[in-house]
Amino acid sequence: MTPLHARISTTLRDRIRRGELAAGSSLPSEAELCQEFGASRGTVRSALATLRHEGLIGGGQGRRPVVRDTAVGQPFETLLSFTAWAERIGRTPGQRTVEIARRGASAAAAAALRMAEGAPVIEVLRLRLLDGAPVMVERAAFVEHVGRLLFDFDPDTASIYAHLADRGVDLQSARHIIDAVGADETDAALLGVAPGTPLLRERRHTASAAGVPLEYGEDRYRPDRVTFTIDNARPAAAGAGQELRVRKDAEK
Amino acid sequence: MTPLHARISTTLRDRIRRGELAAGSSLPSEAELCQEFGASRGTVRSALATLRHEGLIGGGQGRRPVVRDTAVGQPFETLLSFTAWAERIGRTPGQRTVEIARRGASAAAAAALRMAEGAPVIEVLRLRLLDGAPVMVERAAFVEHVGRLLFDFDPDTASIYAHLADRGVDLQSARHIIDAVGADETDAALLGVAPGTPLLRERRHTASAAGVPLEYGEDRYRPDRVTFTIDNARPAAAGAGQELRVRKDAEK
Repeated sequence: MTPLHARISTTLRDRIRRGELAAGSSLPSEAELCQEFGASRGTVRSALATLRHEGLIGGGQGRRPVVRDTAVGQPFETLLSFTAWAERIGRTPGQRTVEIARRGASAAAAAALRMAEGAPVIEVLRLRLLDGAPVMVERAAFVEHVGRLLFDFDPDTASIYAHLADRGVDLQSARHIIDAVGADETDAALLGVAPGTPLLRERRHTASAAGVPLEYGEDRYRPDRVTFTIDNARPAAAGAGQELRVRKDAEK
Repeated sequence: MTPLHARISTTLRDRIRRGELAAGSSLPSEAELCQEFGASRGTVRSALATLRHEGLIGGGQGRRPVVRDTAVGQPFETLLSFTAWAERIGRTPGQRTVEIARRGASAAAAAALRMAEGAPVIEVLRLRLLDGAPVMVERAAFVEHVGRLLFDFDPDTASIYAHLADRGVDLQSARHIIDAVGADETDAALLGVAPGTPLLRERRHTASAAGVPLEYGEDRYRPDRVTFTIDNARPAAAGAGQELRVRKDAEK
């Protein structure tokens, strides 16, 4: 039999997931939860501690717990778009475009985009900022019919992804491969670090609903400013999927 | 109206998720899929390309597509346990324990374990290997009542997590914070890299079902040997959750 505290946390988790307890809203008080579940205060606190550990609720230390904005994890757009992500976490996104160029695909881009090495792609190199501070160097290679939509667009003013979506480009799925790499001379100059400084690297394969590759990107983050967080928990019941959330976080 | 190729890929994805198409099994042939869905070969291929891009199926190039073992993402245990992960991907895990010690908690461990700095914890430092090659340095700090179960255990022979589970320790949820860090002298000597080499760092907070912290760990991976992959896709319908999978991969 499932312990009462686990049944309480499961019930509250479901309410959060279904949006019955919306992001930013307060949970019922401990007294109300004790009454609803016929539980002691210690049991309710234990259930709340679970949700707090899972990142679903914040607050506490005497204050009413609040459903965290990140409780449902990172929406698709904000894992793809730096601009959408920054706005969601309440920061001001910025960018400085170093170049936008039509040139032959590198070996890595060609493999990702399933084209011949040297076939034309549109490459973008941008420095991305949060509240004016450099946090990431973005290198993206777009297939030609997508990338040429960027030549009538000022990539210093807004989100490339939002622009492409407006133009009807079907960016449906993304794979993000995360590892670490030392800063090259370009990274070092743009991010204000020494060459060789460890950076958090995200290589991104973005594709259409039909699985056709449209973009291959490589983003290099200052790890003192941005991290990725994965939360998971054992499945609540046999056969159930595990709880899993992914989030990109910025240092304050 | 949803295009036919998207309906086919959604149907097949659901069958994989529900286990009707098990990991390792072959999909129906293109001809069979054409007949089942009343679709052209091009449409079926487009649906299969989507699933291939999402990492749900492998094979192709003339061979019958096969449901990938990783199609359902990383089970909870294998994101926690190096041993379970290595075995799942068909590699031989190894470990060399450098030390297991009872000492005062560092500031980072104390904060994670919600105890006073300097309060006793059990610390483990191990080098982890895949097929005999060093891939990761593991530093773990356990709360005392859990960690002392490790003193009657040889951490060179098997999984610490499996041992703790056998002893009834309730490791229910984990948070993994991923960034990058330069190799220190210990990392460099154990991993066979130069000091300062960029490493992929995973800081791990493991807790009980009640949210009580039991372990704080810091794993440092050679990024040329291990990466993390996040796959996501736009929700299939408004209000639906996004497709999301996380996987830890090793270079062959």
